[in-house]
Amino acid sequence: MKQFVRFASDNGARYGQVTPEGIYSMEGSPFGEMKPGQLLGEVETLDLLPPVVPSKIVCIGINYRDHAEETGAKVPDEPVMFLKPLTTLIGPADPIRLPPQSTRVDYEGELAVVIGREVFCPDAVDARRSILGYTCANDVTARDLQRKDGQWTRGKGFNTFCPVGPYLNVDVDLGPRNIETRLNGDVRQRSNFGELVFDVEYLVHFVAQVMTLYPGDIILTGTPSGIGPMSAGDQVEVEIEGFGVLKNFAQAAE
Amino acid sequence: MKQFVRFASDNGARYGQVTPEGIYSMEGSPFGEMKPGQLLGEVETLDLLPPVVPSKIVCIGINYRDHAEETGAKVPDEPVMFLKPLTTLIGPADPIRLPPQSTRVDYEGELAVVIGREVFCPDAVDARRSILGYTCANDVTARDLQRKDGQWTRGKGFNTFCPVGPYLNVDVDLGPRNIETRLNGDVRQRSNFGELVFDVEYLVHFVAQVMTLYPGDIILTGTPSGIGPMSAGDQVEVEIEGFGVLKNFAQAAE
Repeated sequence: MKQFVRFASDNGARYGQVTPEGIYSMEGSPFGEMKPGQLLGEVETLDLLPPVVPSKIVCIGINYRDHAEETGAKVPDEPVMFLKPLTTLIGPADPIRLPPQSTRVDYEGELAVVIGREVFCPDAVDARRSILGYTCANDVTARDLQRKDGQWTRGKGFNTFCPVGPYLNVDVDLGPRNIETRLNGDVRQRSNFGELVFDVEYLVHFVAQVMTLYPGDIILTGTPSGIGPMSAGDQVEVEIEGFGVLKNFAQAAE
Repeated sequence: MKQFVRFASDNGARYGQVTPEGIYSMEGSPFGEMKPGQLLGEVETLDLLPPVVPSKIVCIGINYRDHAEETGAKVPDEPVMFLKPLTTLIGPADPIRLPPQSTRVDYEGELAVVIGREVFCPDAVDARRSILGYTCANDVTARDLQRKDGQWTRGKGFNTFCPVGPYLNVDVDLGPRNIETRLNGDVRQRSNFGELVFDVEYLVHFVAQVMTLYPGDIILTGTPSGIGPMSAGDQVEVEIEGFGVLKNFAQAAE
């Protein structure tokens, strides 16, 4: 497995590779050719950006059996798809803005699949090959507006409502890893990818039969049970076993 | 009022201005500085592209009173918002692909608002000022999948499901114009912007309180009654009074 971060530098956004000695600045990106440059400091010294630059953010609803029970929804026979606008995307350490229109904004810890090459209508094998890697994501949701509208776009579409990162994890078998969401250090969601209703290869295949996916596009794969609200000042962490911890604070709108 | 087209040329995509003498090739774009270049041929000689390059396509559901009645939906007290992925965008004369997953793909003729400058959380006046112009759009919808999923993203999100054009109409008062959709020449939808539940300035203001809008972003404002299916080979035209006719053919998937 290789882990990459994307960070702001004087020369614009760059990728870095995480190694035991520290972060190596990279020429190029994990989406193409790459070679290592100089050794930088520890990851904490970098201004981290979202590890990918998507052209779209596709999300899947109701994809853990326990979350379906929690919300009273039936487990669907096909994935239910929705989109978050790109304006939702923020990186690790960026604040989640709590909009004044909502009185309940929830965390939803999720696995995000990162697409590595253009695909449309692939067979299942092409779909699997189009997966470059994985990162942690938080499908932040204004629960009251999601319920009111019926359509989920507004409730899940406010600026800052899609934190992702910190690492782009590539060359990895996903396997039955654990996923955990913590609010101010307390575990609120804990599950395992063995509990997914539709696995990631199925999801990529399903989405790519509807719309062309491009390198950097991400698919959020649904959240397990334990969703709940955040207040201004709360710290929310999404940890996927071996993939890193995505940490953000909630902040009141100005 | 000024009308612009965007077209493919040997030097890449360019804007042209529609005049009584023909199309003038323009240096620059309606989103910034512009000056006229050479006189080209008639519009029919050009390879027309979508007249805008959006970073997002926002759509509004149930925004004509007669369409609410037709679908049995209640007129909402706030606009209902959804997104189409950018991969849905096609220009005038591009074919609408009928995907094999659906047995009923409908036309929905609509007015699209084109955003001219970045806005987030504006007051109503800023929202109005952020509107650059208007174009015709077709919110193509796989009705069976829209109903099955509950969420509208898949049913409205297939590649080619957002024809727009042919003109970007700027420096214009919208007023109570007529909108009409024709299938193989027969009128199927006919209404007037006086029938809109939420007017365009309200919609821009509403959306811009959720997500940042950028120049070129479009907001589809909902469809009137008369929706219905298309078959392979059908020609669908969306005409807005004074704004041009958007014409596309439906085509079976290969």
